[in-house]
Amino acid sequence: MKRLLIKNGTIISATSEYVADILVEGEKIKEIGIDLPVDGCEVIDATGKYVFPGGVDEHVHMGPFGSYSFETSHAALVGGTTTIVDFAPQFKGKTLIESLQEHEKENAIGKASCDYSFHSMVMDNDPDLLMRSIPELAKNGVANIKFFMAYKGTPFYANDELIIKGMTEAKKYGLTSMLHCENGDFIEALAKKYKAEGVKDPIGHSLSRPPIVEDEATFRGIEMAKIADCPLFVVHVSTKNAMKFVKQAREEGYSVYGETCTHYLTLDESNFLKPDFEGGKYVCAPALRTKDHLEALWDGVDKGYLTAVGSDNAAVIGGFESKKKGIDDFTKIPNGCPGMQNRLYMMWTQGVMKNRITRQRFVELTSTNPAKVCGFYPQKGAILPGSDADIVIYNPEVKGTITFKDNYEGSDYETYEGFERSGICEKVFLRGKLMAENGKYVGEKGTGRYIKQKAYALPYDRYVPRKK
Amino acid sequence: MKRLLIKNGTIISATSEYVADILVEGEKIKEIGIDLPVDGCEVIDATGKYVFPGGVDEHVHMGPFGSYSFETSHAALVGGTTTIVDFAPQFKGKTLIESLQEHEKENAIGKASCDYSFHSMVMDNDPDLLMRSIPELAKNGVANIKFFMAYKGTPFYANDELIIKGMTEAKKYGLTSMLHCENGDFIEALAKKYKAEGVKDPIGHSLSRPPIVEDEATFRGIEMAKIADCPLFVVHVSTKNAMKFVKQAREEGYSVYGETCTHYLTLDESNFLKPDFEGGKYVCAPALRTKDHLEALWDGVDKGYLTAVGSDNAAVIGGFESKKKGIDDFTKIPNGCPGMQNRLYMMWTQGVMKNRITRQRFVELTSTNPAKVCGFYPQKGAILPGSDADIVIYNPEVKGTITFKDNYEGSDYETYEGFERSGICEKVFLRGKLMAENGKYVGEKGTGRYIKQKAYALPYDRYVPRKK
Amino acid sequence: MKRLLIKNGTIISATSEYVADILVEGEKIKEIGIDLPVDGCEVIDATGKYVFPGGVDEHVHMGPFGSYSFETSHAALVGGTTTIVDFAPQFKGKTLIESLQEHEKENAIGKASCDYSFHSMVMDNDPDLLMRSIPELAKNGVANIKFFMAYKGTPFYANDELIIKGMTEAKKYGLTSMLHCENGDFIEALAKKYKAEGVKDPIGHSLSRPPIVEDEATFRGIEMAKIADCPLFVVHVSTKNAMKFVKQAREEGYSVYGETCTHYLTLDESNFLKPDFEGGKYVCAPALRTKDHLEALWDGVDKGYLTAVGSDNAAVIGGFESKKKGIDDFTKIPNGCPGMQNRLYMMWTQGVMKNRITRQRFVELTSTNPAKVCGFYPQKGAILPGSDADIVIYNPEVKGTITFKDNYEGSDYETYEGFERSGICEKVFLRGKLMAENGKYVGEKGTGRYIKQKAYALPYDRYVPRKK
Amino acid sequence: MKRLLIKNGTIISATSEYVADILVEGEKIKEIGIDLPVDGCEVIDATGKYVFPGGVDEHVHMGPFGSYSFETSHAALVGGTTTIVDFAPQFKGKTLIESLQEHEKENAIGKASCDYSFHSMVMDNDPDLLMRSIPELAKNGVANIKFFMAYKGTPFYANDELIIKGMTEAKKYGLTSMLHCENGDFIEALAKKYKAEGVKDPIGHSLSRPPIVEDEATFRGIEMAKIADCPLFVVHVSTKNAMKFVKQAREEGYSVYGETCTHYLTLDESNFLKPDFEGGKYVCAPALRTKDHLEALWDGVDKGYLTAVGSDNAAVIGGFESKKKGIDDFTKIPNGCPGMQNRLYMMWTQGVMKNRITRQRFVELTSTNPAKVCGFYPQKGAILPGSDADIVIYNPEVKGTITFKDNYEGSDYETYEGFERSGICEKVFLRGKLMAENGKYVGEKGTGRYIKQKAYALPYDRYVPRKK
Repeated sequence: MKRLLIKNGTIISATSEYVADILVEGEKIKEIGIDLPVDGCEVIDATGKYVFPGGVDEHVHMGPFGSYSFETSHAALVGGTTTIVDFAPQFKGKTLIESLQEHEKENAIGKASCDYSFHSMVMDNDPDLLMRSIPELAKNGVANIKFFMAYKGTPFYANDELIIKGMTEAKKYGLTSMLHCENGDFIEALAKKYKAEGVKDPIGHSLSRPPIVEDEATFRGIEMAKIADCPLFVVHVSTKNAMKFVKQAREEGYSVYGETCTHYLTLDESNFLKPDFEGGKYVCAPALRTKDHLEALWDGVDKGYLTAVGSDNAAVIGGFESKKKGIDDFTKIPNGCPGMQNRLYMMWTQGVMKNRITRQRFVELTSTNPAKVCGFYPQKGAILPGSDADIVIYNPEVKGTITFKDNYEGSDYETYEGFERSGICEKVFLRGKLMAENGKYVGEKGTGRYIKQKAYALPYDRYVPRKK
Repeated sequence: MKRLLIKNGTIISATSEYVADILVEGEKIKEIGIDLPVDGCEVIDATGKYVFPGGVDEHVHMGPFGSYSFETSHAALVGGTTTIVDFAPQFKGKTLIESLQEHEKENAIGKASCDYSFHSMVMDNDPDLLMRSIPELAKNGVANIKFFMAYKGTPFYANDELIIKGMTEAKKYGLTSMLHCENGDFIEALAKKYKAEGVKDPIGHSLSRPPIVEDEATFRGIEMAKIADCPLFVVHVSTKNAMKFVKQAREEGYSVYGETCTHYLTLDESNFLKPDFEGGKYVCAPALRTKDHLEALWDGVDKGYLTAVGSDNAAVIGGFESKKKGIDDFTKIPNGCPGMQNRLYMMWTQGVMKNRITRQRFVELTSTNPAKVCGFYPQKGAILPGSDADIVIYNPEVKGTITFKDNYEGSDYETYEGFERSGICEKVFLRGKLMAENGKYVGEKGTGRYIKQKAYALPYDRYVPRKK
Repeated sequence: MKRLLIKNGTIISATSEYVADILVEGEKIKEIGIDLPVDGCEVIDATGKYVFPGGVDEHVHMGPFGSYSFETSHAALVGGTTTIVDFAPQFKGKTLIESLQEHEKENAIGKASCDYSFHSMVMDNDPDLLMRSIPELAKNGVANIKFFMAYKGTPFYANDELIIKGMTEAKKYGLTSMLHCENGDFIEALAKKYKAEGVKDPIGHSLSRPPIVEDEATFRGIEMAKIADCPLFVVHVSTKNAMKFVKQAREEGYSVYGETCTHYLTLDESNFLKPDFEGGKYVCAPALRTKDHLEALWDGVDKGYLTAVGSDNAAVIGGFESKKKGIDDFTKIPNGCPGMQNRLYMMWTQGVMKNRITRQRFVELTSTNPAKVCGFYPQKGAILPGSDADIVIYNPEVKGTITFKDNYEGSDYETYEGFERSGICEKVFLRGKLMAENGKYVGEKGTGRYIKQKAYALPYDRYVPRKK
Repeated sequence: MKRLLIKNGTIISATSEYVADILVEGEKIKEIGIDLPVDGCEVIDATGKYVFPGGVDEHVHMGPFGSYSFETSHAALVGGTTTIVDFAPQFKGKTLIESLQEHEKENAIGKASCDYSFHSMVMDNDPDLLMRSIPELAKNGVANIKFFMAYKGTPFYANDELIIKGMTEAKKYGLTSMLHCENGDFIEALAKKYKAEGVKDPIGHSLSRPPIVEDEATFRGIEMAKIADCPLFVVHVSTKNAMKFVKQAREEGYSVYGETCTHYLTLDESNFLKPDFEGGKYVCAPALRTKDHLEALWDGVDKGYLTAVGSDNAAVIGGFESKKKGIDDFTKIPNGCPGMQNRLYMMWTQGVMKNRITRQRFVELTSTNPAKVCGFYPQKGAILPGSDADIVIYNPEVKGTITFKDNYEGSDYETYEGFERSGICEKVFLRGKLMAENGKYVGEKGTGRYIKQKAYALPYDRYVPRKK
């Protein structure tokens, strides 16, 4: 079996930082130690470099909603992310697992460069189908089920009654309910108002989806989790109040967790105002927020109010050109931005280097916690004996600028164009295989493997059922 | 003109308490003074008695939803309430004022013993009809418009989008939006759950409408008022959290007010458990709550978190017999309890006598503030020169027990059966006419007069439009 | 007996506003009514004018600490204040009442133009003397006892142990404990620090007494009131956090109240930076604050978090010249600013006219509540039959500018120099006597009379002793 | 060099749990891996056992105040704690380091069984001496300086001014200020009150030191840290409000941390009421609290509001007999209870086994975080290559009862007498040496070594100096 020895790197975990050698045997980490013997090993000197577990991006969209499929998943690897977790859509009349398998077949198998896993998204409002679907999820390696509170009038939308029913059932199998929290009625009322006032440009997206749209739904979502008495994970929290509600619920003893995304930490609302419809590039839901929200979210990821940072990568096929469908009507701009490649760079450069988070917290937010939320820690998300050898060797000295020419995400623009990049993923290993080097993809398509989740993941750690 | 002199009573207002004489000339208070001359006056010695303005009950139902009409309004007078404000229903396809006038004609004219006024209830979901209705309200003496967040699947229900639209328009005319805050989806999910578990009895009403059902809707309702940038009055607040949301919103600078009702202060949830379906008598929405909510509400009315206390009087025609429609299915029990007769007695005996509120606050909550909310202060709600001579002479020494045989509300049971009554409304004057004496009605049917409201009432006092 | 009839004015109380006539007979208000007969009366037409009760200034210093005595009390009358409450110092080794009587004799008798009353200040740290003093206060018409947490090393300072002891005893007699809340140790540490850094100018006063100095002491003072289980009134609250602590304590069920002062609402910290030592004019304790505190305090007086607004009038004899003792050392500038003349004008012009408070709240804050706190409502602080005829006729149309040439406070500068004055006290009556007209004093020195306070004043209204 | 191989244990860190082998070489951990070769090693099979880093007790008293010296430190080892941090007293007129060295010489050298380190306690109020002392601390391996807010009238007491001065200086050298937070004046007032009422028994200790005594001082201490703009560590937090203040300060961006102690989590106030003066055994400061505080503290250590759990071990020489000095006067009972032996057992049995904390959090609270706070992580507090081989092999299956006959703390009673013990420290290694086995001490006296702390420890991690 191939043996790889990474010597003298500064290993970062969620708790600690220390200098040691890592011995990889095959796909796994075998030993970590001081002065490990080099015989029979390919040796990599990591002196002066940081060594941390490959990133886990618990929030990507690969295929559905007009986005690029897993054939673009090498972008993740180039940026140090070795596992991505996609939201598998439900097809009309099919169970969640049937849908997932169909989706995987079409979009992932043979295409995925990095390891991957799935959350299921409820998109058929038939309660009986939902009840039939839930029991088979956990058995098949899916630990999370997502409901949409927004998008009224589309298959995504689930009303409060259905969500409560689904959550109640999901809990019986150790599944975590995930919620997309936006109030569709509020959006509708505001979009009509602003369109009536003549607003057409991308800023209308933001005007019609102000923070209150998310705050209200987040609050209501948490109330539903209380009724269902179940753990909850709120996806893409973007406002200070939504975050506050997540925090308060947990303080009150509820198992309520949330993630935010790279762009909510680093891109503010003013991007929608860029001329020549450039603002359209940033249209995603929830909308980008003002700087006070960004600062609050940094504070929240630092202090642990939010548990993970995903990318919500959704690279619309056709890129900017496709976005222009909404050039005369902001409500027609397709939602979604690419972002899985530079998540770690943004978190390191804007977070660690600006003293907003520690290096340990960086690892916890981008790798360890996502892996725990998805139920595959410490297979992923850790540098520990026995873990998959998903390892990033990070050279903090190489500075650069994030720019489209280095981008692998499939789109025709770079979401973080022009942002500074402090350090580089010198080497990225996926289960012991070198997949990317200094910003170039050097791996083989199809290397990615499906990772099964275990139910009763992190949100169940401190879950205590309520007495009635 | 007839002159009435009430001598030496201890006059209570919302701010003060002092001994003086009151001279009534015709329907109005003409003078208040020390040692007013008695010549030409009918003189009533009120020495040792409290004298306060006739109660204003800003929340009654007289006619719609199967309740008794204004022919039972003398019950209010017997209990010291001289003005009641009814919720006028909207009839399918008709404007709010057309509906109100039809409702008044059928239920109030010639029947009302006490003075009365109306709030309008939106019950047709046609947005265009709503837009046409709103401008004519203020002109016709209606200052409040009520929306229902609950009762999905009935004409009452207005979805969030319609409410925001209505609130936005209402504000242009100085109308206050009122909200019935309960989440219909939550109720539906819970009612199904408990019915599936075999619950049939009245307690199911409470189980399927727990505090969270109201808390969530109250929170959401306030968020809608923020979007519409309008004053809001939340009716029948029954939970500590709903009250907290009202309080917090006002502290944050929003014009958000609320009332609670007599029964939420004095009757707890355990009433639903009374044997032989007696629990059914108490079925109303929101449901009765546990004692901790009662105590919190007392604290809130004492400290001013809530602004008024209404009765939500809704005496179902047929009384207890009608309630038995739901004997096998708690969801079929008609909502509503009688209560306008003993509101003041309950507030005095349970509030003032138990040191939960001061006498001044008693007057403020039951008379002065409701009159301000309804836009007819100081015509009503005050003992001041120029005000209507709606006066209660209250003898605090006469103790008794509240019991059905003294009841005028039309039903076949007394909601507050067995409660102590500390003091009695010795004389109740409506515009100078003696209408009730020591618990007996002595007035003439049809004495009641329609009182027009003025727009821009109390909730607009401190309203400051938000900058966008 | 002389009869005065004020016709057709718009009478403002803490609750209401209505047009009526007021009949004054001798020193008292006899009647309030519509179209009162004019025969035998001196008639004043108040049509279009506001009529409100004479102001009650519950916080002035007349004599001690090098301030002008009651011979300057006509300043209050000119500005519509008819009663002032002075802090009587304690003399070494004497009881509080002995000290008070000596102080009154020297400073008030024969000199006072307006009515007056006293709070006692503890300035001898002998616990036995304090214990002997307390029982005689209530009997002698003193309802409040004040302790200083600041000024360590002077007779003012009382340590926490003495304060708790005093509070505990005071409660037994229905006295309200008042606290001056500043942490002397914090001030000392900061004053030394800034002096060591070379700061000499008046801004040093502010740097060494930042909000935290007051916040901490206010918090601690409230904790002491909890230990002593007694009502508390915090004087001159100047920071948003101190106010928040007062508010929270009351919300938690403690009888904790507070006042702020005119200057904390209207003058910000930047005044200390005025050139040529002009900043020294504003030196008072607590120090002036930044604008965010001012806005928070306006919000607090609007919403009732604070109960009254006093002037803390302390016109240093010698005025600006005396202040210059501290020209080279900010710690040597005598504390105190004049301010009793323009309190009402500042509250009206900066408060009512800027929509920060209503007219009713203006009356409540400047007259009704101070009278209640001092235990002489409704003798003072009300326009009611039986109350003292302390009446202001206010013409809102006459605009002007506050300036030193109109000042009667005894000093050589006007604290509110240059501020707009919206309206004028056209006539000011003290117990039926005209004392001031359109900014001119027209009364007679020595008219002022000592007003006894009754114990168990407003802070006892809702006081409930705690169970141990 | 001796090689020890611990095979197949379930290694617990603050973040993770995994099965692996640990290779110890000499005093250090050399490797962690899967299937490490056994040749040349002493092999211990840890299959089915938990393996975690030796406990770090950051709060013990060994010698001063009449407590047993380090000769009893083997008690710590028996209970799985391998490092203790003692508070070195200051001797009158001597610098902190001089005092520390004298203290170490007398009490620790040659006597210590486990590793140890020191915090310095300020006990001479001479500010100049303090200023001279501070710069030499960091150089000499001391990273923490402790001030007492209580014990007015003794050398311990530092007034607010001195504390602010000390904190300000300490920050310049990366020292963390520690505070004992109790208000001495409050205690004095209450102790006199209860003694006057005839209270003599140990419960008087609790009555005179109720939560408010600590709450106030904690609040004030945090305010001082804000003035000094320095990191703060509050020792022995025992009340829910004190904890809340620590939490809030950190949420507001201040570097404020705190510990609680084993007894505040597990022993309630009712212990003071034990008959025959048994209550005296539990006299310590702060006092034991009621159960609601215990539950709140468990919640707080679970959620991270508090950072560490120490023992505050202070075994009074003479034990219960010595306590009896206060048999007629609760103020004369010597403070302090033994507790370093069973800290880990109590946290495991009452915490982990009752689902109040996870196993990872157990390790974090009792070992990892204390080591970080003391500036010697990852030398201590971690099972990582390169760390000291301080290792506990914990057999969770062996149940027992905590009882005095197993106690090594030197006293004549067991603080946790009768509590269940779930699991046993099967083997405890200090730097690779076996020191205790199954509750028996098997080590050699004097094995303990002085561990130097590094300044800028954990409380500086997120410290950001404030702008003035």
